[in-house]
Formats: sequence, C-alpha cells, structure tokens
Amino acid sequence: MTPIEQMSSTRRDHAGALSDPRRVEGFSDAAFSIIITLLVLEIHRPESGSGHLGVELLAGWTSYVAYAIAFVYVGVIWLNHHYMFERLSKIDGTFNWINLGIIGTASLIPFPTSVLANAFRGVDLSDQRSAVLLYALVAMLMSAAWLPAFAYLRRHPELLNPQFPPSTFAKQVLRPIGGIALYVAAALLGWFVHPLLAVGTFAAVVCYYAGTSRGIPTDH
Amino acid sequence: MTPIEQMSSTRRDHAGALSDPRRVEGFSDAAFSIIITLLVLEIHRPESGSGHLGVELLAGWTSYVAYAIAFVYVGVIWLNHHYMFERLSKIDGTFNWINLGIIGTASLIPFPTSVLANAFRGVDLSDQRSAVLLYALVAMLMSAAWLPAFAYLRRHPELLNPQFPPSTFAKQVLRPIGGIALYVAAALLGWFVHPLLAVGTFAAVVCYYAGTSRGIPTDH
Amino acid sequence: MTPIEQMSSTRRDHAGALSDPRRVEGFSDAAFSIIITLLVLEIHRPESGSGHLGVELLAGWTSYVAYAIAFVYVGVIWLNHHYMFERLSKIDGTFNWINLGIIGTASLIPFPTSVLANAFRGVDLSDQRSAVLLYALVAMLMSAAWLPAFAYLRRHPELLNPQFPPSTFAKQVLRPIGGIALYVAAALLGWFVHPLLAVGTFAAVVCYYAGTSRGIPTDH
Amino acid sequence: MTPIEQMSSTRRDHAGALSDPRRVEGFSDAAFSIIITLLVLEIHRPESGSGHLGVELLAGWTSYVAYAIAFVYVGVIWLNHHYMFERLSKIDGTFNWINLGIIGTASLIPFPTSVLANAFRGVDLSDQRSAVLLYALVAMLMSAAWLPAFAYLRRHPELLNPQFPPSTFAKQVLRPIGGIALYVAAALLGWFVHPLLAVGTFAAVVCYYAGTSRGIPTDH
Repeated sequence: MTPIEQMSSTRRDHAGALSDPRRVEGFSDAAFSIIITLLVLEIHRPESGSGHLGVELLAGWTSYVAYAIAFVYVGVIWLNHHYMFERLSKIDGTFNWINLGIIGTASLIPFPTSVLANAFRGVDLSDQRSAVLLYALVAMLMSAAWLPAFAYLRRHPELLNPQFPPSTFAKQVLRPIGGIALYVAAALLGWFVHPLLAVGTFAAVVCYYAGTSRGIPTDH
Repeated sequence: MTPIEQMSSTRRDHAGALSDPRRVEGFSDAAFSIIITLLVLEIHRPESGSGHLGVELLAGWTSYVAYAIAFVYVGVIWLNHHYMFERLSKIDGTFNWINLGIIGTASLIPFPTSVLANAFRGVDLSDQRSAVLLYALVAMLMSAAWLPAFAYLRRHPELLNPQFPPSTFAKQVLRPIGGIALYVAAALLGWFVHPLLAVGTFAAVVCYYAGTSRGIPTDH
Repeated sequence: MTPIEQMSSTRRDHAGALSDPRRVEGFSDAAFSIIITLLVLEIHRPESGSGHLGVELLAGWTSYVAYAIAFVYVGVIWLNHHYMFERLSKIDGTFNWINLGIIGTASLIPFPTSVLANAFRGVDLSDQRSAVLLYALVAMLMSAAWLPAFAYLRRHPELLNPQFPPSTFAKQVLRPIGGIALYVAAALLGWFVHPLLAVGTFAAVVCYYAGTSRGIPTDH
Repeated sequence: MTPIEQMSSTRRDHAGALSDPRRVEGFSDAAFSIIITLLVLEIHRPESGSGHLGVELLAGWTSYVAYAIAFVYVGVIWLNHHYMFERLSKIDGTFNWINLGIIGTASLIPFPTSVLANAFRGVDLSDQRSAVLLYALVAMLMSAAWLPAFAYLRRHPELLNPQFPPSTFAKQVLRPIGGIALYVAAALLGWFVHPLLAVGTFAAVVCYYAGTSRGIPTDH
C-alpha cells in the first residue's frame, strides 16, 4: 500500500464516521423528492375524445387543490428534516429506524390525497366523510412519527452537533403535538359537521406547519 | 472526545454551513431526475392482441413528440437550475420556498403533457383547444416560478458566491418573461386559430430556452 | 495549467479512487429510496361515488399490512447495505454486478406485494396459495442475492476498509441462509396448510432480519 | 466576512469547479436508478379472484424475461456511464446536452419492454413483429446516444482527467456501433424470419455489452 493509499484509507475511515448522517440524509432526501414528485401521478386525467375535455379538466379542481396541499405538506416535512439533520453529528441504529418511520409515513401521502380528491370530485357526502377520516388518520401518523425523534434526541445529546445544546429540539416537540390536535379537530369537524370543513382545516395545518417551520435559518 | 473527533466536529460544522446549497441541490436534482424519468410512464401503450399493434404504435406519435418536448424542457430547467446554484454560496429559508416553487411547478409537467398527447391522438378540435390551454397555463406557471428567484437574489447578494457581482442574474429575468409572453401567444393562437399552432409554439419556446440557456459554462 | 488546477486534478484523481464506493452507494441508496416509495402506488385505491368508500377502505386492510411488511423489509435491506458499504474501501467490477443483483431483486418487491394484497382482498384459497408462493420465491431471491456478496468479500479482503478483519462478514452469511430457510418453510406452510400461516411467517422473517441487523452501529 | 467564511468561500469556488462532473454524475445516477426501479411497474399483474392466479402468473413469464433483460441493459449502461465519468475532470454545456441524450434515450426503455412483454403474452405474430421492431429501434437510439459522447471527448481532451490520454475512449466507440449493427440484425431477423429470434438477439446484445463493459476497473 502506497502512502497516498494509506492516507486515503485514513481519510476514508474518518470520512466514514462523519458521513453517516450524510448518507441517511441523502437516502431521506431522495425519498422526499420521490414522494413530492409521485404526487403528480395522482392528479386525475380525464379521457379526451368526448369533446368535453375542458369541462372535465375544470371538474378536476379537487385534484389540483389536493396536489397543492400535499406538495406543500411534503415540502414542509422535508424542511423540518433538513433542519433536524443539520443539527446531528452522528446517527445510531435506533435513530435510523425512527427516521425510517418518518419516511414510511410520509410516503403514504399520495394514497389519502388521491382518495380525498376522488371523493370530492363526486358528490356523495358519506364517501367524503370516509376520505376525510382517512386523510386525517394518515396525517396524524405523519405528525406522530416525529415524536420519537425529538424524544430520542433529548435523551441522546451525543448525537447532536456539539455546538447545539441538548435542548435544541425541546420546543420542536410542540409542533407535531399541535398538528395532531388539529387533525383530530379536522376529523371531528369533517365527520359530524361537514367534510369541507375538514379539508379547510387540512390546508390550515399545512400553513401552520409552514409558518412555524424554522427551515434553513441563515444564522447557523 | 479525541482530537480527531474534535477536528471532525469542527469540519462538520464548517461543512454544515457550506453544505446547505449542496443538500438543496441534491434534493432538487433528485426531483428533476424523477420528473424527467416519470415522463415515460405517460407514453401511450396500445393493447396488443388485436393484430393492429403496429398501426396503433404509429398512431401514438403524439405521445412521442410530447415526450421529446417535455424531456428537453425539463432538461433545460435542470441546466438553468444547475447554473443558478453554481452561483450560490448560501441559501436561506425564503429561497428554499422559492426553490420548492420551481420544483413543484416543474413536477406538474407529466400531467399536461399526457393530456396534450391524448387530445391529439383523437380528432376533437375543442378537446385539443382545452389541452393546449392547460399546457400553456402550466408552462407559464413553470416559467413564472423563476421570477421570484431572480428578484430575491438581486435583493440578497449575500447569498451569491462572492466572485459573482449582484447583477449576475439581472439579464436572466428576461428569459422567463419572454417564455411567459410566448406561452400567452401560443394559448391565443391555439384557441382562436388552430391548436397545432400552439404545439408548434410550445416546441419553439423549448428551443428558445435551450438556445439561451447558459447551462454549465467552462469559463467559471 | 495553474497550480491550483493541478492541485484540484490531483485531489480529483485521489478523490476519484476514493469515491468509487460512494458513487455506487449513492446509486444504490437512490434505488432503495425509490423502491420504498413506489410501494405506496401498490396500495389498493377504491373507487368512490358508490357511497361505500368507508367499507371499501376498511376492506383494503390487506394492502396496508402488505405495505407495512414490504416497507420494513426494504428498510432492513437498506440498513444491511449501508452496514456493508461502510466496511468497503474499494469496489471492483465483479462486486458491482453483485450489487446490481441485490438491487435488481429488491426492486421486484412491489410486484409480489401487490399480488399478495390483491389475493387476500379476495377469498379464493388457491389464488392466495399462488400469491404466497410468488412472494416466498421473490423473497428467497432477495435473500440469495446477498450470498455472493459475502462470499466475494471473504475472498477479496483488499476491498475491505483496512481497519476491518477479513472475517468481518463471516457471520453475516448466516442471516440470508436463515432467511431462505424460513421462506421455504413459509411456502410449504402456505401451500399445504393455510396461506395465512405463510403471511405470518413473512412478517416474522422481516422481524428476524430487523432484529439481527446491525444497522449503523455507533461504535465504529 | 470572517476568515473562516472567506476560506469556505474559496473552497466552495474551488469545489464548485471540481464538483461539476459530480453534480451531473449525481443527476445521472438518480435517473438511472429510477429507470431501473420503474421497470417493475411494467411487470404484468394478473387480476386475482378467478382462482386462476397461479396459471396467469406462469403465463406472465414474458414480463419476467423482459424485466431481466431490461434490468441488465440499464445496469450495463450505468456501468459504462460510471466508467466514462470517472475519466472526466470537467464538463461543458455541449457535453451536458450529450449526457441528457444518453439519459433521455435510456429513460425510454420501460416503454418498448412493456410493449414487447405484452405482445409475447399474446399469440399474434404480426403484433410480436411490431413490438420487436419498436424495441430494436429504441435500443438503437440508446446505443447511438453514446456516439456523440465519444466523438466529443476525442476532440476535447481538456475535459479528460489529465492522467488519461486523449485516446482513452478511442476503442469504446466500437461498442455502440457493434450494438447498433446487432440491433439491425435483430430487427431483420424478427421481421422476416421469426420474432423470437429477435428477442434472443436482444438478450445476446445485452450479454455482449455486459461482457465488453470495462465497468469499474480496480487498476486506475
């Protein structure tokens, strides 16, 4: 082994230890970019040839709204994920499973989004109620998947970048709890009052998440 | 903590500050590569078994043209994105949302591309007009998504790589404006004269974008 | 060529030699993240409008269970892949083909997962038996694809990071062998006794893999 | 600007110049991993419930063979791409378009693969002939897309890593030419003799490409 190879091995080891959060970041980023891009496949595509394409495209507005809400939702989740990983210096096996839980629940979003858009293209209120319940349930799962992450990082400050205090994520935990409470409210409103109220609340939660997201602060 | 761990932490912090545009670049690149690859799923696949597969494959030429135009369009957008990010040294939260807007509108392209190809596989002129309008609208959104990026970077030269003057993107803003004007023209031509004229204009805009794209200059 | 260009070339060459496992890692990670995200497309989406959406969503529980099992399975495979690549310093052409075999078999999982979920949404026992057999077969392939990797690395310690002994993967080879044995058992149980027993075994194998996975240990 | 920021800027500029081929590599890798993973969506999924799932799964063997051939084909293309990019130190705008041509033609492969598999699940010979012709045509395009790459790199040795002579890719150009000739032969055999001969030739070409691929040599 030549000295330069030796040096590279050493640097590789070193880089290997450092690169852990990076590889998991890369894997997660790829997953988020796929989720956000697959959403377009769920947009309703009317059959043409009938001469009514224009009308049917307009009738597909529920798909477009659902696309927009879901896109911003995944965008916010990705920003939060970015924000969290920026503060990590190491990842262990447990945290990796927690991270897979975040990705696995976020991956579900095209399913309830498509069911919701289809139900609101129709007029059946009981179908809309079911779709709203499904969406609220999956959205709650997506929020809940962040709770173990914050709890684990509070107990394992050694995973944090040393420049950050162990309390870095202390306040963050309030956001998914607030989100879950709002999704419960949305489900109740949608089931007992009117499904459209639930959809309005879904949009509001995404705005709430977007507004409270720290995203990528410039002051790091 | 061993000295080498300390050093890695320091380098990580340092790299963390530097790596911001890189992670957003990576996320965006993954999204663009998915968009460009998902386009193939929109190509019309005729049923075989009828003995007319050859004829039906030839009749699917509108899908192939639409694929080619959309592929080059996304390719140009990616080149421009690459060109822009090469000039950035930092990214803040606002710019990240602007970037999500660029990705979110670009992600839409498989939808109008598929609607357009289907409408031109048929013969109904009013369907073709609607499809042309939808495509023009989404393409305008895709162009418009770049305007806030250039405007924001002009007001925030601190995000630019110091070797570039704040005027780096001054001329770039003319390109999406030119594109939007051409898409308005395409929509008007397609609606009031003939839908095929609009499709010709769509192809021309992509050529215009490709021709004026700086892409990856070797002289940086 | 300026000195700085010379230096960068040298660093590039150097980095080029080092970056091999990294590029293959990146390619593999992207593939795993796509596989794990495409699974959602296989979840059964009931038609709405009938007023029975709620009932049909509940009837789709087989899709949800199949999604969860497949998601954790791919997650475990990715963790193992991560664990293996962390220990590699170089990759040669043969190992690259072995790696493609791992990705190519893992890519198949949405297919048997969807067939399995559909068969269990119905009530036909012979269909369920066929679906169970297909799943067991593909899952065996996915496990078997790891055997050449471990065998090759044992004979080529020069690909390993020098800090690891050639015996690094010696015990690892037992895991896919155990997995294959369990999938054979699942297929036999499913075919001769009852398909549901096979599904239970599938879930158990994933738990077995997850439990024995080293994942990303903190002590490297 | 603090000294450390200045240093990072300098390193960023420097890294920026170096990272060009890397970002294009990353974009291309993501595209290849998506192409290779999307192939599974083209595998025929029989409807269950009829009690004939087992028979229909067996009848789907053409899909499985087509999947295997296409997977190895994309795998070889990726290896070649990897091999080429390892030898590049810079990329200019023209080469970027050439690279997009390689990705754009490779992205097409799920389309003829699916048409081919469907045609051979049926028994209509004229349909099979058409499908074989389509596959040969797309495969020729995929091979032809490499010709401008090799031609351009021969005329632009400044893009090559300095340790490699300008003749690095001189022999490589023979491989796509050989491939195109074989695809022409396959198309003629399939059209005038029997479609199955064409499929056999398609498999042979992939083996030819795999056998002559340099892949990732360890001796760089």
